Amino acid sequence: MPEFIDVHRGMTGITPEVLKEVNQANRAIQDEEGVNFKQAWADPESGLVWCLSEAPNAEAVKRIHERAGSPTEEVYSVPVQV
Amino acid sequence: MPEFIDVHRGMTGITPEVLKEVNQANRAIQDEEGVNFKQAWADPESGLVWCLSEAPNAEAVKRIHERAGSPTEEVYSVPVQV
Repeated sequence: MPEFIDVHRGMTGITPEVLKEVNQANRAIQDEEGVNFKQAWADPESGLVWCLSEAPNAEAVKRIHERAGSPTEEVYSVPVQV
Repeated sequence: MPEFIDVHRGMTGITPEVLKEVNQANRAIQDEEGVNFKQAWADPESGLVWCLSEAPNAEAVKRIHERAGSPTEEVYSVPVQV
Protein backbone atom coordinates (compact mmCIF):
# COMPACT_ATOMS: atom_id res chain seq x y z
CA MET A 1 0.00 0.00 0.00
CA PRO A 2 1.40 3.45 -0.90
CA GLU A 3 2.38 5.70 1.98
CA PHE A 4 1.76 9.42 2.36
CA ILE A 5 2.90 12.30 4.52
CA ASP A 6 0.47 15.16 4.91
CA VAL A 7 1.16 18.55 6.41
CA HIS A 8 -1.12 20.78 8.49
CA ARG A 9 -0.32 24.38 9.41
CA GLY A 10 -1.57 26.89 11.92
CA MET A 11 -1.83 24.45 14.85
CA THR A 12 0.24 26.65 17.17
CA GLY A 13 -0.03 25.52 20.78
CA ILE A 14 -1.40 22.08 19.88
CA THR A 15 -1.57 19.77 22.92
CA PRO A 16 -1.30 15.98 23.11
CA GLU A 17 -5.04 15.88 23.88
CA VAL A 18 -5.96 17.86 20.76
CA LEU A 19 -3.71 15.77 18.52
CA LYS A 20 -5.24 12.62 19.98
CA GLU A 21 -8.77 13.93 19.32
CA VAL A 22 -7.93 14.90 15.74
CA ASN A 23 -6.29 11.53 15.17
CA GLN A 24 -9.27 9.66 16.59
CA ALA A 25 -11.68 11.63 14.39
CA ASN A 26 -9.67 10.59 11.35
CA ARG A 27 -9.28 6.98 12.44
CA ALA A 28 -13.00 6.67 13.13
CA ILE A 29 -13.79 6.99 9.42
CA GLN A 30 -10.51 5.97 7.74
CA ASP A 31 -11.75 2.50 6.78
CA GLU A 32 -14.35 4.03 4.49
CA GLU A 33 -11.55 5.12 2.14
CA GLY A 34 -9.06 2.33 2.87
CA VAL A 35 -6.77 4.72 4.74
CA ASN A 36 -4.61 3.77 7.74
CA PHE A 37 -3.20 6.65 9.77
CA LYS A 38 -0.01 5.27 11.28
CA GLN A 39 1.66 8.14 13.15
CA ALA A 40 1.45 11.89 13.68
CA TRP A 41 3.95 14.44 14.95
CA ALA A 42 3.25 18.01 16.01
CA ASP A 43 5.36 21.07 16.79
CA PRO A 44 3.31 23.40 19.03
CA GLU A 45 5.77 26.24 18.39
CA SER A 46 5.59 26.39 14.59
CA GLY A 47 2.05 24.98 14.48
CA LEU A 48 3.10 22.30 11.99
CA VAL A 49 1.65 18.78 12.08
CA TRP A 50 2.70 15.81 9.96
CA CYS A 51 0.68 12.61 9.53
CA LEU A 52 2.03 9.36 8.07
CA SER A 53 -0.57 7.12 6.46
CA GLU A 54 -1.08 4.19 4.13
CA ALA A 55 -3.78 4.77 1.56
CA PRO A 56 -4.83 3.83 -1.98
CA ASN A 57 -4.04 7.40 -3.12
CA ALA A 58 -3.59 11.00 -1.92
CA GLU A 59 -7.22 11.90 -2.63
CA ALA A 60 -8.42 9.31 -0.12
CA VAL A 61 -6.23 10.88 2.58
CA LYS A 62 -7.57 14.34 1.68
CA ARG A 63 -11.17 13.19 1.82
CA ILE A 64 -10.80 11.59 5.27
CA HIS A 65 -9.01 14.66 6.65
CA GLU A 66 -11.65 16.97 5.21
CA ARG A 67 -14.60 14.95 6.54
CA ALA A 68 -12.91 14.61 9.97
CA GLY A 69 -12.48 18.37 10.23
CA SER A 70 -8.73 18.60 9.63
CA PRO A 71 -8.52 19.44 5.92
CA THR A 72 -5.22 19.92 4.07
CA GLU A 73 -4.20 20.22 0.45
CA GLU A 74 -0.66 19.09 1.27
CA VAL A 75 -0.61 15.33 0.88
CA TYR A 76 2.61 13.85 -0.50
CA SER A 77 3.33 10.36 -1.73
CA VAL A 78 6.51 9.00 -0.09
CA PRO A 79 7.56 5.96 -2.12
CA VAL A 80 11.24 6.51 -1.25
CA GLN A 81 12.10 5.63 2.35
CA VAL A 82 14.99 4.73 4.60
CA MET B 1 15.42 12.18 24.12
CA PRO B 2 13.61 14.94 22.18
CA GLU B 3 12.53 14.10 18.64
CA PHE B 4 12.74 16.26 15.55
CA ILE B 5 11.40 16.34 12.02
CA ASP B 6 13.49 18.17 9.47
CA VAL B 7 12.50 19.13 5.97
CA HIS B 8 14.62 19.26 2.81
CA ARG B 9 13.46 20.79 -0.47
CA GLY B 10 14.55 20.64 -4.08
CA MET B 11 15.25 16.88 -4.16
CA THR B 12 13.05 16.30 -7.22
CA GLY B 13 13.66 12.86 -8.73
CA ILE B 14 15.35 11.50 -5.61
CA THR B 15 15.94 7.74 -5.86
CA PRO B 16 16.12 5.12 -3.09
CA GLU B 17 19.87 4.91 -3.72
CA VAL B 18 20.40 8.65 -3.23
CA LEU B 19 18.28 8.74 -0.06
CA LYS B 20 20.25 5.79 1.28
CA GLU B 21 23.56 7.55 0.54
CA VAL B 22 22.43 10.78 2.18
CA ASN B 23 21.15 8.84 5.20
CA GLN B 24 24.40 6.91 5.52
CA ALA B 25 26.46 10.11 5.35
CA ASN B 26 24.42 11.52 8.22
CA ARG B 27 24.49 8.34 10.26
CA ALA B 28 28.26 8.03 9.85
CA ILE B 29 28.81 11.15 11.99
CA GLN B 30 25.59 11.38 14.01
CA ASP B 31 27.17 10.01 17.22
CA GLU B 32 29.44 13.03 17.40
CA GLU B 33 26.41 15.18 18.26
CA GLY B 34 24.31 12.55 20.02
CA VAL B 35 21.86 12.41 17.11
CA ASN B 36 19.99 9.28 15.99
CA PHE B 37 18.36 9.44 12.56
CA LYS B 38 15.45 7.04 12.78
CA GLN B 39 13.56 7.28 9.49
CA ALA B 40 13.37 9.33 6.30
CA TRP B 41 10.67 9.71 3.66
CA ALA B 42 10.99 11.28 0.23
CA ASP B 43 8.60 12.41 -2.48
CA PRO B 44 10.48 12.45 -5.80
CA GLU B 45 7.68 14.48 -7.41
CA SER B 46 7.65 17.48 -5.05
CA GLY B 47 11.31 17.06 -4.11
CA LEU B 48 10.44 17.11 -0.40
CA VAL B 49 12.29 14.93 2.12
CA TRP B 50 11.48 14.51 5.82
CA CYS B 51 13.82 13.01 8.41
CA LEU B 52 12.78 11.87 11.89
CA SER B 53 15.52 11.95 14.51
CA GLU B 54 16.24 11.88 18.21
CA ALA B 55 18.73 14.52 19.32
CA PRO B 56 19.67 16.72 22.27
CA ASN B 57 18.42 19.78 20.34
CA ALA B 58 17.64 21.13 16.87
CA GLU B 59 21.09 22.68 16.45
CA ALA B 60 22.71 19.24 16.72
CA VAL B 61 20.50 17.96 13.89
CA LYS B 62 21.37 21.01 11.77
CA ARG B 63 25.09 20.58 12.35
CA ILE B 64 25.09 16.90 11.35
CA HIS B 65 23.05 17.62 8.23
CA GLU B 66 25.32 20.50 7.27
CA ARG B 67 28.53 18.52 7.78
CA ALA B 68 27.09 15.52 5.91
CA GLY B 69 26.25 17.70 2.90
CA SER B 70 22.46 17.86 3.31
CA PRO B 71 21.95 21.19 5.10
CA THR B 72 18.54 22.52 6.11
CA GLU B 73 17.30 25.34 8.30
CA GLU B 74 13.95 23.59 8.81
CA VAL B 75 14.31 21.46 11.92
CA TYR B 76 11.22 21.19 14.10
CA SER B 77 10.85 19.78 17.58
CA VAL B 78 7.95 17.31 17.72
CA PRO B 79 7.14 16.76 21.40
CA VAL B 80 3.48 16.03 20.61
CA GLN B 81 2.91 12.65 18.97
CA VAL B 82 0.29 10.03 18.37
